[in-house]
Amino acid sequence: MHKNELRRDPISGNWTIILKNQNHIERIIQKVQQRPEVSTEVCSYCERHEHETTPEIFAISEVPRQANEPGWQVRVIPEKYPVLQIHGHLNSRGIGIYDVLDGIGAHELVIETPKHGVDLSEFEAPQLEKVLTVYKERFLDLKRDNRFRYVLMHKATSDGEPGFLDHSHSHIIATPITPLLVKEELANARAHYEYKERCLFCDIIRQEQEARVRVVLEHKGFIVIAPFAARAAFQLMILPKRHETFFEWNSELYDLAVCLQEIFQKMRAVLNNFDYIMVIHSGPNIIAGKQRGYWKTLEKDFHWHIELTPKVLAFHSFEASSGFQVNPVPPEDAAAILRLGTWRDESNSDQ
Amino acid sequence: MHKNELRRDPISGNWTIILKNQNHIERIIQKVQQRPEVSTEVCSYCERHEHETTPEIFAISEVPRQANEPGWQVRVIPEKYPVLQIHGHLNSRGIGIYDVLDGIGAHELVIETPKHGVDLSEFEAPQLEKVLTVYKERFLDLKRDNRFRYVLMHKATSDGEPGFLDHSHSHIIATPITPLLVKEELANARAHYEYKERCLFCDIIRQEQEARVRVVLEHKGFIVIAPFAARAAFQLMILPKRHETFFEWNSELYDLAVCLQEIFQKMRAVLNNFDYIMVIHSGPNIIAGKQRGYWKTLEKDFHWHIELTPKVLAFHSFEASSGFQVNPVPPEDAAAILRLGTWRDESNSDQ
Repeated sequence: MHKNELRRDPISGNWTIILKNQNHIERIIQKVQQRPEVSTEVCSYCERHEHETTPEIFAISEVPRQANEPGWQVRVIPEKYPVLQIHGHLNSRGIGIYDVLDGIGAHELVIETPKHGVDLSEFEAPQLEKVLTVYKERFLDLKRDNRFRYVLMHKATSDGEPGFLDHSHSHIIATPITPLLVKEELANARAHYEYKERCLFCDIIRQEQEARVRVVLEHKGFIVIAPFAARAAFQLMILPKRHETFFEWNSELYDLAVCLQEIFQKMRAVLNNFDYIMVIHSGPNIIAGKQRGYWKTLEKDFHWHIELTPKVLAFHSFEASSGFQVNPVPPEDAAAILRLGTWRDESNSDQ
Repeated sequence: MHKNELRRDPISGNWTIILKNQNHIERIIQKVQQRPEVSTEVCSYCERHEHETTPEIFAISEVPRQANEPGWQVRVIPEKYPVLQIHGHLNSRGIGIYDVLDGIGAHELVIETPKHGVDLSEFEAPQLEKVLTVYKERFLDLKRDNRFRYVLMHKATSDGEPGFLDHSHSHIIATPITPLLVKEELANARAHYEYKERCLFCDIIRQEQEARVRVVLEHKGFIVIAPFAARAAFQLMILPKRHETFFEWNSELYDLAVCLQEIFQKMRAVLNNFDYIMVIHSGPNIIAGKQRGYWKTLEKDFHWHIELTPKVLAFHSFEASSGFQVNPVPPEDAAAILRLGTWRDESNSDQ
């Protein structure tokens, strides 16, 4: 009899039900949501269609060029249908018992490549490094605006956004409040530091390096693990091994790009053209925060990281009603399968 | 220019981005996930197939009958693939920095009707009352076990569970820890009570009854509202108007059944055979809690409720990375559309 486990993630505080029945694994791998076939057509995010998009905010190019002209490698534009808008005041107010703010923030779209039909998960390291550099530049710039408490990088393939184009892209969002999930991470990290005077994430890295069972790979300054209480099958976390609070202060983005390329290759070997969500959780906007007296030990207690979550059909949708996620692939198995780059050998060797 | 809003839900503490562009509404209604055509075949949940399921835990029938024989109207069996198991000890332990429990709990399946091919959302009030009565009986029974901190009713149509059968059913789950989402509701309700000495939910009901704009219907002791910071298009909350902590102590389940039938009819008029998640958030297991000194003002501060959430393709999947949900249909519009039972008239009259 396989004994399922309830595991608590010390970073988010969430509990996950981990199913221990290895018979699920084949079925789960078959159910990983696949990116649809990319149209070979060009679209308005393609090179030489710059005039069809909103006007450029930022771009990287290796040749001298004018804004909104060809020659770029990564390009940032305002999202055409922003969920938050850059202009205006927060106008924070109460309506009886309720709290409401105007939807002020920033919502930018990063076009990750001039080429149509290649996803970020298929990029070579040099192009990945350029994308990471653009994220970094946008984080640095947006955090100068102290209306914004947080800046988030969010990438979801095959998202249901209006006007969705299947040209590889990601979102940068600056929000006037700290998102709840990040708030919980910040609170748990601070509580750990207050008690132990050590960074929670550094402690996790140390324990994982000793246990080895959930480490998928290490590359120079970075480590990739399947979190102990992973909320979804094959969910991974990428962290800098050295303590570092802010993604945008990292100076080893080429190493990170190599690490990402390798991890995407391993995942694609097992999960094919999997749909996924990728997010960077950096420290919050320290200028906005310190003004308000928050985050006194932030630089010691918080540690930036990337979360990479394949879209796998959930076994149950209990999360929506309870916050419990059910993960049918134990992270130890996920890590072993991804290390090998195949699931069959592993599942046989365990029986 | 439509100004989007960030709204905070005082119950969960979550912020939702409410899109104010009414042009989205038609597209959203078209994208509501529909229940697949039900097979007309019989299945092992059907009457006269009782011997094909796990042995019955409880049933309601109007005629004398033996367990596991025909003649029942609602029947409860152990889930064949339980995420939590009834036997054993919690065996709470630490693994270095991590916390883990054995997956002890209860996972039961409520077969809501002997007939194949009719969903709960299509039931008449008398059958709905029987289902609610079964929930109540199972809540009362499971809460006698003080290993369990919480008992949850969760129904999701077209769920991805293993062995899923499209015969109308729901899940009862008893958990050894309070689910995170409920914990947040309990904490917010207690904080409100400590400050105001009034129940948060009673305050919300009072404000909604005055404002009227988000009330969908009232029936005797129950009220149905589109929450101010609804996390999904057409999400609804059903509450008893009188302060009451525990669903399982309610003695007006027929009135609740009539209310539910009416609300499902209105939703089906707009959203057709929509897929949905329905959940009952009752108070936690007070025996287990009081032993541990929790929930001192629980009976005054917490108020049970039902959440009903249609499965609508999200506009963005920011929730997974941040906790922000984007709701493209303001709850005021959702309530107006559902009150009328059609969206076209409403969207015209607003222009």
